[in-house]
Amino acid sequence: MAEIIIASKNKGKISEIKKILSLKEVELLDLSELSFSSSIEESGITFRENALIKAETVFSLYKIPVIADDSGLSVWCLGGKPGVFSARFAGPDASDEGNNRLLLEKLQGIPDEERTAWFCCAAIFYHSTGKYFVSEGKVDGEITQSPVGKNGFGYDPIFFIPEYGKTMAQLSAHEKNRISHRALAFRGLKKYIEEYLRKLS
Amino acid sequence: MAEIIIASKNKGKISEIKKILSLKEVELLDLSELSFSSSIEESGITFRENALIKAETVFSLYKIPVIADDSGLSVWCLGGKPGVFSARFAGPDASDEGNNRLLLEKLQGIPDEERTAWFCCAAIFYHSTGKYFVSEGKVDGEITQSPVGKNGFGYDPIFFIPEYGKTMAQLSAHEKNRISHRALAFRGLKKYIEEYLRKLS
Repeated sequence: MAEIIIASKNKGKISEIKKILSLKEVELLDLSELSFSSSIEESGITFRENALIKAETVFSLYKIPVIADDSGLSVWCLGGKPGVFSARFAGPDASDEGNNRLLLEKLQGIPDEERTAWFCCAAIFYHSTGKYFVSEGKVDGEITQSPVGKNGFGYDPIFFIPEYGKTMAQLSAHEKNRISHRALAFRGLKKYIEEYLRKLS
Repeated sequence: MAEIIIASKNKGKISEIKKILSLKEVELLDLSELSFSSSIEESGITFRENALIKAETVFSLYKIPVIADDSGLSVWCLGGKPGVFSARFAGPDASDEGNNRLLLEKLQGIPDEERTAWFCCAAIFYHSTGKYFVSEGKVDGEITQSPVGKNGFGYDPIFFIPEYGKTMAQLSAHEKNRISHRALAFRGLKKYIEEYLRKLS
């Protein structure tokens, strides 16, 4: 059976990716199973560059096709920040609450119509040296004045999606997995990976 | 018949790409035919980022699948330079001769074994918003002490390929189109585009 590595150790993310992809006839490994001990420096200035750094690093080690992604929040009036620094906005070991608090502070006094923001995810399937398919997903929204909703994680409670009249944290897991930036990105990746696997068999 | 845009105005490059791809059942347009008048700022720090900027810009304007590429020379002891600045190393309107002269100057006194260099090409097929396939090609070599050979263009006369015992400028067009970084990158792209076209029909 074909093997593919998910370049992550994050259990929540791995299970979300497996659920969205729901691939048959393939064994999905991840970095915790492979006792991958080094840390990958996410030095890119874009989500896609970071996803690619992860994919290339892992592919070069194991020579097995790799799935990698990187995602984050960009706020228009902050020139796209926190962007690739989303997870570590309030510091290297920042909590979700810490990051949310800092972002709301930075937007203090800024009216609703200038709080435009977007979640992006770049997902990559890297299957041979220098050959890869990229699928990006984006959700448009705006930053609330305070956290609303209990689901999801990260910036979900302060990310309002006008189309649904809810914050990302007010969506059910099922709804989120249908419309999120990660879902959109991985849906494109799924098609490509299925085609890739079909050609192998 | 399906249409694909080659995101270039450079006649030489367009004809080289058409030759390598040799696609059937598709009309390949280019930016000179589309009276594309704006200039695309190549602000990326990597070849793939520049290729992607071109592809995205053109796709967002015409909403037709786009082929784009970016390529250049990296020299190890210059920390990867000239890299994305290869074409404009000696200035914005630099000639091939000017660029070659400047590079040889910078490497003056550096022995052969430290003149390691590589040509890279990132080729992209961008077919819907945020969905694209990337194929990269790389050729390893070393910078000569002076120009040798009359074929090709750019840094070809000072790029020696140990495997062939010749500079890139000593290869025939036929040989170059078989082993060059651009040929390697576009060969990977060809497979993907053919699959894409097959699914359309």
